Parts: sequence; structure tokens; C-alpha cells
Amino acid sequence: MPKEDLHFSIRTDLAIETREMVTKEQDVEVPGVKVTVEEQKDKQITVTWVEIMNEEGAKQMGKPIGNYVTVESPLMKENDIEAHEEIIRVLAKQLVKIKELKEDAVILVVGLGNWNVTPDALGPKVVSKVIVTRHLLEHIPEQIDESVRPVSAIAPGVMGLTGIETSEIIEGIVEKIKPDLIIAIDALASRKTSRVNATIQIADTGVHPGSGVGNRRKGLTEETLGVPVIAIGVPTVVDAATLVNDTMDHLIDAMIKESNKESELYKMLQRLDEQEKYQLIREILNPYVGDLFVTPKEIDAVIDRLAYIISNAINIAFHPGIDLKDINRYK
Amino acid sequence: MPKEDLHFSIRTDLAIETREMVTKEQDVEVPGVKVTVEEQKDKQITVTWVEIMNEEGAKQMGKPIGNYVTVESPLMKENDIEAHEEIIRVLAKQLVKIKELKEDAVILVVGLGNWNVTPDALGPKVVSKVIVTRHLLEHIPEQIDESVRPVSAIAPGVMGLTGIETSEIIEGIVEKIKPDLIIAIDALASRKTSRVNATIQIADTGVHPGSGVGNRRKGLTEETLGVPVIAIGVPTVVDAATLVNDTMDHLIDAMIKESNKESELYKMLQRLDEQEKYQLIREILNPYVGDLFVTPKEIDAVIDRLAYIISNAINIAFHPGIDLKDINRYK
Amino acid sequence: MPKEDLHFSIRTDLAIETREMVTKEQDVEVPGVKVTVEEQKDKQITVTWVEIMNEEGAKQMGKPIGNYVTVESPLMKENDIEAHEEIIRVLAKQLVKIKELKEDAVILVVGLGNWNVTPDALGPKVVSKVIVTRHLLEHIPEQIDESVRPVSAIAPGVMGLTGIETSEIIEGIVEKIKPDLIIAIDALASRKTSRVNATIQIADTGVHPGSGVGNRRKGLTEETLGVPVIAIGVPTVVDAATLVNDTMDHLIDAMIKESNKESELYKMLQRLDEQEKYQLIREILNPYVGDLFVTPKEIDAVIDRLAYIISNAINIAFHPGIDLKDINRYK
Amino acid sequence: MPKEDLHFSIRTDLAIETREMVTKEQDVEVPGVKVTVEEQKDKQITVTWVEIMNEEGAKQMGKPIGNYVTVESPLMKENDIEAHEEIIRVLAKQLVKIKELKEDAVILVVGLGNWNVTPDALGPKVVSKVIVTRHLLEHIPEQIDESVRPVSAIAPGVMGLTGIETSEIIEGIVEKIKPDLIIAIDALASRKTSRVNATIQIADTGVHPGSGVGNRRKGLTEETLGVPVIAIGVPTVVDAATLVNDTMDHLIDAMIKESNKESELYKMLQRLDEQEKYQLIREILNPYVGDLFVTPKEIDAVIDRLAYIISNAINIAFHPGIDLKDINRYK
Repeated sequence: MPKEDLHFSIRTDLAIETREMVTKEQDVEVPGVKVTVEEQKDKQITVTWVEIMNEEGAKQMGKPIGNYVTVESPLMKENDIEAHEEIIRVLAKQLVKIKELKEDAVILVVGLGNWNVTPDALGPKVVSKVIVTRHLLEHIPEQIDESVRPVSAIAPGVMGLTGIETSEIIEGIVEKIKPDLIIAIDALASRKTSRVNATIQIADTGVHPGSGVGNRRKGLTEETLGVPVIAIGVPTVVDAATLVNDTMDHLIDAMIKESNKESELYKMLQRLDEQEKYQLIREILNPYVGDLFVTPKEIDAVIDRLAYIISNAINIAFHPGIDLKDINRYK
Repeated sequence: MPKEDLHFSIRTDLAIETREMVTKEQDVEVPGVKVTVEEQKDKQITVTWVEIMNEEGAKQMGKPIGNYVTVESPLMKENDIEAHEEIIRVLAKQLVKIKELKEDAVILVVGLGNWNVTPDALGPKVVSKVIVTRHLLEHIPEQIDESVRPVSAIAPGVMGLTGIETSEIIEGIVEKIKPDLIIAIDALASRKTSRVNATIQIADTGVHPGSGVGNRRKGLTEETLGVPVIAIGVPTVVDAATLVNDTMDHLIDAMIKESNKESELYKMLQRLDEQEKYQLIREILNPYVGDLFVTPKEIDAVIDRLAYIISNAINIAFHPGIDLKDINRYK
Repeated sequence: MPKEDLHFSIRTDLAIETREMVTKEQDVEVPGVKVTVEEQKDKQITVTWVEIMNEEGAKQMGKPIGNYVTVESPLMKENDIEAHEEIIRVLAKQLVKIKELKEDAVILVVGLGNWNVTPDALGPKVVSKVIVTRHLLEHIPEQIDESVRPVSAIAPGVMGLTGIETSEIIEGIVEKIKPDLIIAIDALASRKTSRVNATIQIADTGVHPGSGVGNRRKGLTEETLGVPVIAIGVPTVVDAATLVNDTMDHLIDAMIKESNKESELYKMLQRLDEQEKYQLIREILNPYVGDLFVTPKEIDAVIDRLAYIISNAINIAFHPGIDLKDINRYK
Repeated sequence: MPKEDLHFSIRTDLAIETREMVTKEQDVEVPGVKVTVEEQKDKQITVTWVEIMNEEGAKQMGKPIGNYVTVESPLMKENDIEAHEEIIRVLAKQLVKIKELKEDAVILVVGLGNWNVTPDALGPKVVSKVIVTRHLLEHIPEQIDESVRPVSAIAPGVMGLTGIETSEIIEGIVEKIKPDLIIAIDALASRKTSRVNATIQIADTGVHPGSGVGNRRKGLTEETLGVPVIAIGVPTVVDAATLVNDTMDHLIDAMIKESNKESELYKMLQRLDEQEKYQLIREILNPYVGDLFVTPKEIDAVIDRLAYIISNAINIAFHPGIDLKDINRYK
């Protein structure tokens, strides 16, 4: 594997993290990639819009051409209803912006992941809170008094529970109900402990194989499904190796500051390649800890908060007749 | 509506109940219908095999030509592990008998109903306990050391939660994974309070519209799906009208016994037509009680027991390498 | 049993129902009982304040001297947030009125009932939504920036799960933390199907033995605990006999209207004593249906709504610094 | 803090870990401590009996005089029913051995922890699976046909939910029901990632403050309650610092092996004090990761397995009439 591709093997689903790794290594802006950052300092919300504009950018980033919007706030995991409402508003705005939709577009929300595993249950929980209207518009349109789009929603379960690839289930349903847009919600992997449960990424390039907590095997993309797919993802855990790695980075920084620059240790630490270090840690960890993940203790409550935020951003973004003051009426 | 069709409007999904109603009214065996009863008195298990043999039988019974096997035991709702094991054995035997299967037949188990409504959660609960193997046989066949068939399982949710007809979801999945047989589990309606949670019906004619707790709109049958469908159903509730009706029947019996046969009351009670009485009760109840159901207080535990029985009967019946002593290892 | 005591054996925990039965039989106002009714027709809320003023009233009603306030609304079981907020406001007002409290009164909320049985889970669910502050006021009073009273809350479980009488557990805790007031939440029995999940009763006489879904054996009262006890109860189910009885009443009314007044039937129906009829129905039902209860199908959601209403009425009534607009922040 | 006390500040509730730390540092057997190890190699079960015999041992170990029995097996967290049955048998044997009981001893099982936080829910889950008999022996002794002791069980909840110290609740109940023995189940903290969910410790010295996932403030001991307390605990998580520390130990071992013994690095690594290293890691981690815990992804299933094992060991150990073949009948 040539050196410049090494960073792709580091497990992250966040475009902002890939970009950090690419630019860190090459110390220049990534060609073919446009980045815009908007900060609401008082609200502690940062929106980063990463556009991969061409093949060059895609090659550098190891991700398909398209838009990757990240909404970050440390408050989304806290019990702070007012902050959540502001994050819902910001997130809904990005959803409207990332994909223009005709007024009667049919939408299918897909909640990936496993109900029975808390940090992987984000997708199914969002699905359970989305306002579903397709059947009402079909069967009793006269009773729908607000301006709503036909939304349907499904949480297909994971392959270990169904024996069926998630993509096969979704392909089958898509062929039947022919939606104009798919919104797929998933738990992601992150490479920074600080981003866990504090970051929501929206991507118009769909869900790609091999990412996330549950290791789906096939993607959900416009190529495979014939319908545009917006992926909404949150890193809900980091793996143990990432945590150790983060800690060692901080440790090494501290040691380098204090080291004699002529010392053997300083040289060794300086020589450590990011990717080699991560691989080393994984190898060391593996026989001892197996498949451990790092989560906050109150993960159940955190996942509920994230599901509340994402489902309501979807409800507001796709039903023009519904706004923030309505959301507590439907649950 | 001609008199002889009246009984079809009485809400029951159980062939044994239709037969009871038909024969009661006409006082002869139903033409075109063959009935075999097997009783294990010591185990308190009764198996009734109702075969609707031809069009005449189908017309009389208001149900399609096919086999309807009922396993009845008052112990299935009790906390009695030994009785449950015997019922699993008996149920598995009927499943093997009702449908011959080639050795490598691909099976899709469909759990109808709604996770969030206890008496309607039987289907999803069975799905969560079925041993799923299709993905293992596809991806790591060398690690499967027992003789198992490729089984997959899905609980698609109800239309109120997904916005999609259950039949559309299943049709889509069936077209993708092309099973040889579908097993559909559903909560049913009964017309006898005593049968609630004490009766399992297996039918090789599939699931028909309008039945059950959740009022599905379309059926799941070989005609609609192109694949044979075995329906496994349990009446998990009775509606309030049925309960009142049952009580009044007993009350009237008691009154008739004590009445002067010349009395006005006796004559009136005698004149009461079964169907008219039920309709009368429904009309009276409706404005006052709305959509009430009758359940045992410990319904959560009862549904768990039924799901345990049905899922393990499926596990034993369709995986030749798995028998009763193995079932507690997989859960 | 003398005639005038018969109505006490009819199972109801609601003072308004006892009163209906007493007055129906005697056709006069109940001596020693004062009743005030306030209706908000536009909001569909009725508040009935039944005060049993003296021994005469207590004897007539079969209930201790004290206040019994009923808040009734068919909307409390529906998915209607605005109606719920109004009901919370009305309920909180009654709680403030029924018991004057000094500013720093220590309150213990006790959620009776069983988490695992949905219609009996009201008490534990309320406890899980009450804002608990006692430990904060004790350990970090400087961080409490709103005017709150020290509230603690416990759901002790039922005797079948703990092996201990609920009253023993509460007595033990009361001796340790010495509260000034106990609020006990319980599921009740009703004698009218239409009141199920549409009625909240507040009584300043505590919880009395033998009532409710779970048949507690001992009461929780000021006599037994040495602390005033406010009971908040909702009839969450009716037993099957009540349902049949209600239906037969309507049926008999219909028959009487159409009967020849000279007929034997008319005379028989007229002769039916309320209590005898109910007993007759119970006897008939018993061997056939056992311990069945009647519930709405969506009982899980209904109990959640009632718990939301009651817990927030408690939060507003007892924490002067918290009002309706705050309630969604604490959950 | 003198050097020899340093190890007490390292967070572990397991006596075998304290001993490992003490002996590692001092390279001799701990005076006043007797250790017996029994291994069933074929079953992958190790039982270690640590007896702190006198004040000297207590001082060295930082734990009270008493017995600390550890049952370790990597299989307790796996889906392996046969291994679980063997572990139940071994664990029950230790419970019988650690505390002699008269035939009619009254037992109170206390499940510490929080139902809503998966890794802290072990105690409440065990309580829900313990066979409770006290109320039956009191009210219907003639119906109890097996030799059972009067067992009661309670999960009092955590202070954040109740506003009451757990110890106050238990003291109150103990004064009422006067048990002869308390069994307290708790989630513990461990200092070795490999011990998480693979170790059960039984101690006859009760539960001590400050330990465990939930940081109880007061202990449950014979001194505070007046009744002997057996604590059963499982380390269900490790904190993030422990994981990093474990990894770095392995990393340092690897580096030491490859290092030139004259090198600066080797000397530095050799010099690292166990306690200093852990503190350093905690300091580094703190601002970045906050209160993170490390768990296996399938923690929900693992906690269920541990609760199954512990509850059934209790059932067998304390009810002479119940043995392993009965346990699946009661659930």
C-alpha cells in the first residue's frame, strides 16, 4: 500500500476527519475539496460543509464526489432541551439545502442498526419517532389538514437477526414503493473520542460498505438503489484502539515538549507514523480486549436525545406544514 | 344477506370455530370438510385437523380449500416448562406434516404485528427467537456443523408505523431472496374466550385480509406472493362483545333450565339467533366502550411463553440437526 | 348483609361511583356528604369534589371522612398534548388545594404497582418522571437555583416480586427519612367502563386495603404511617364482570322500553337488584374466563400519557419554582 | 501519601487484584493473607479464595478482615448454556461455604444499581430472577411443597432516581423484616480489562462505600445494618484509563524486550511506577474523554447472562429443595 493511501485504512466515516488526516500529512489544502465552516459560538454549534468537487478530491479523500455536512455541538448529548431545539433547526436547514425536492416527493426513511444493542439502535429509534404519512395520504387524504409529504419509514434489522443483507431488504421495498429519496440513518465510527455523540454528518452520497458500528457489507447508494440516498450518521462509539491512540497522542505531545531533542526517545516518538502507531495499538489490544467499545455511561439517554434531534429535523425539513412548535404533539 | 352466510360475519380466524358455528346451525357434518381429532388427555393437548377438501366445503366454511390444524392446551399460557416442551414437540410434528419440504428449502419467517402493543407483539417476538442461518450458510458454510436449512426472519412492523402495507414489504423481500416457503406468525381473533392464548392454528392457506388484532388490509398467500405460505396464529385477545356474548350464553342456558317452558321469557330466549344476538351486543357496547379488548392481566408473560413455544417448534421442525434438548442453547 | 351495605361489596375505589350507587338506591342526597361539580365544557374537563364531612357520611359511603377530588376528561387517554397541559394545570391546582404545605415540607412519592404488568405500571412510571431533589438539597444546595421542595420517590414493587408487604417497605423508609407528606400513586378499579383511563382521583385519606388492580393487603394511611397520605389513583382497567354488567344494563334498558309492562319479562327485569345481578355475572364468568381484564388495545401508550400528566402535576404543585413551561426540560 | 499505600487509590473492588498489586510491588506473599486457588481447567473455571486473616492483612490489602472468593471464567459472558450451568453449580457451592445458615434463616436479596443504565443494571436484574418465597411461607405455607427458605428481594434504585441514600432504604426495610442475612448484588470496578464480565466476587464483608459503577456513598455492612452482608459483585465495565493503562503495559513490555538495555528509553520505561503511570493517564484523558467506560458491544446480552448465573446460584444455594434441573421452571 503506497504511503499516501494509508490514511484510508484508518477507520472513520466522517469527511472532516479524513480531511484532517489528509491535510495534516500533506500540510496543504486538499485539491478538489472545498470547505466552508460556520460557527455559532454562543450556541456552541459548528457547521462544516465539505464538498468533494472532482475526481482529484475524491482520490485524495478516499470518498465519492459529493457533499458532506457536519453539525457539531457538545450539547447534543446533554439534557438541554433548548440547545436541542436550536440543533434541530440547524440540522433541518442543512437537510433542505443538501437536496432540492419537489413538493410531492415520496420519502423513505431507513433506520439501520440493531434495536437490541444500545449504541447501534440510533437508526431504529429515529424511525420510531419519524412522522409517517404515506398510508394516510393514500387512504384518507381528506383527513390530512397540514401540508405534508408522503413519508414512510422502516428499520429492517441487522443481518445477524434477519439472515438477510440490509441492502436486499431495502432494494425489495424500493422496487415496490418507488420513493424519490431515501434518508438512511446509521451509527458511525469516529477517530476522535471528542466527536462521539457530539457530531451529526449528512452526506448526499449514501451509505458505504464497511463503515459504522454494525459493519454492513453492502452500501445503500444511488448506484445500487436507483434513488438518491442522503445518509445521516452519528459516531456513537469509538473503538478501544482509537481511545488508546488519542491518549498516546496527548502523552507523546507532553513527552516531546519535555524531551531533550537529542534523546533517543524523542527521535523514536518523532518517527512514529500515525497509521503505524494505530496498527500497533490494535495488534497489542486485540488478544486482550477483543471487540470492546468506549461509551459514556448514560449511553441509553444519549441515544434517545440524538434520535429526538434527528427525527424532528427530518419531520421539519420534509413536511412544510410542520414546524418546531408542533414536534412535541407527535410522538 | 342470506341466513346461511351470517356466520361468516362473526369475527373468527379459527377454522374449528367456523365449523362449530356451521354445524351448530345445520346440525349435520359439513359437506366437503374432513375433521380428525387427536387427544392426549394426560398432557391436556388436543390436535384438531380440519381439511377443507373442495369448493363445497370452502363455500360452507367461508375459507379457502386447505388444511387447518389446531393445537389446543390450557397449559400453554401457564408457567409450566414441561408442558411447553410437549406442546413444542406436538406443534413441530404438525409443521413437518402440513408441508413437505426439500432438504435445502429456503425459509422466510415473517412476524406480523406491532412490537409496541403487547397482544399484537407475538409475531415480532417469535422472529426474535427463531434461529436464523441463511447468512451463515451463504458466507461461512464451513462453520455450520449441524444440519440446518437456510432460515431468514423479518418483523416488518405495521402500516401505522411504517406507512407501507406489510404485503408490499414482504413482496419486495420475497422477490429478492426467493424463499421456497414463508411462515407467517400473527395474532388472531377468536370467538370463544376460553380459546384465548390456549390455541395455536397452523394453516397452509396463508394469511387472509381483515383478520387478527391488527386488521391487515391485504393477505399473504401463495396467490399474492408466488410462494406457499404457512400461517401460524394464536388468538391473543377477544373483543369485548365476544366476552359479553359468551357470558350471556351461559346466563341464558342457566335461565332456560329454570324457566317454565310455557313462559314468555323462555320463548324469547329460545328465539334469539346467534348472529343477531352478537350484533345486538356490539351495537349496545359500541358507544360506551369503543375498541376494548379482553386480556389476562399477565399478558406480557403469556405472550413470551407463546413466542417461546412457536419459535422453538419452528427451530425443531425446519432444522433437522436441531432438537428439543438444543433449544435453550440458542436464544 | 343488610341491604344498605350491599353496595360496598361492589368493587370501586372512586368516591363518585359509590355516591352514584348510594343515591341511585336511595334517591336522595347522601347525608353528611357535600358534592361540588365544576365543568370546563370547552376543555372537556369535569372536577368533582366529594367531601365526606362526618361519621354519617362515612357510614353511607363506606369510606373514611375526607376529601375525594375527581378530575375527569376523555382526552387524557388520547394523544393530545394541549389537552394534557390543561389537565396538568387543573390537577396541580387540586393538589395544592387538598393539602396545605409549609414551604420546606419533605415529600415522598410512592409509586405502587408492578413495572412488568402494563395496566399496573402507572405508579412506577410516575415515579420515574417525578423531579427528585431531596439528595441535591442535602448534598449540593448551592447548585439548586429554583425554588424546590425536597422530593424523594420510590417504586417498591409488589409483594409477588419482593416477598415483602408494600406497607412494610414504606413504613421502614418513612421511619428513616421522616417525610411531611406521602403521595401514593396507584391503579384503581372502576365500576364504569367509560371511566377507565379517563378519571384521576385525589384523596386525602390515603390508600386503603383491598382496592386496585394489584390487591394490596394493607393500607397506606396517616394511621399506619404517622404521616398524611394523599392518594392519586386512576382506574386503568375494569374487570370482565363490570363490562358484562354495563352491557346488560344497557340491554335491559332497551328491553324494558320495548316490553309490555304486564309481561313476565318486564317484571323479572324490574326485579333485578344491582348487586345480585353483578354477583350472578361474576359467578357465571368465573369458571370460563378466570381473571380477565378489559383494556384498550393501546394501553402502553395510554399509561405513558397518564404518567406524564400525573408526574408533571406533582412537579408543578410541589415545586413552587417550576411551572408548566419547564416540564419538558426534566425527563 | 507513603509509597506502600499508593495501590489503594487505584480503583479496584476485587481482592485478587489488590493482592496482585501488593505482591507485585513487594515481591513476597502478603502477611496475614491466605490464598487458595482451585482450577477446573477443562471447564475454564478458576476459584480463588482470599482470606484476610488479621489486622496486618487488612492493612496490607486495604480491605476488612474476611473472605473474598472469586469465580473466574471467560465463558460466563458467552452464549454457552452448559458452561453457565457449571458456573452456577460452582458459585452456589461457594455461597453455601462462605456463610453457614440455619434452616429457616430469613434472607433479603438487595439488587444495587440502576435499571436504566445497562452496565449498572446487574443488581436489579438478579432481583427480578430470584425465587421469592417469604410472602408465601407467611400467607400460604401449606402450598409450599419444596424445602425453601423465606427469601425476599428488593432493587431500591439509585440516589439519583429516588433522592434517598440506598443505605437508608435498606436500613428501613431491615428494621421491619429483620432478615438473618443480606445478599447484596452490585456492579464493580476492575483494574484489568480481561476480568470484565468474566469474574464474580463473593465477599462476607459486605458492600463498601465508593466502589462500583454507581459510586454509592455509604456501605451496606454488618456494622451499619446489624445483619451479616454477603456481597456478590461483577466488574461490568472498566474505565477508559484502565484500558489505556493495560494497553501501555503490553506496549512497554514489547518495547522493553526489543530495547537495548543501556538505552535511555529502556531506563525510562523501567522507572515507570505503576501508580504514577495510571495517574498520568487519567490526567491526560480527563479533559478529552470525560467519564467514559469501556464495554463489549453486546453488553445487554452479557448482563442478562450474568444475572441468570447469579440469580440461579442464589436460588440453589439458599433453597435446599431446589436444584439445577428446576431452575428453568421458575422465571
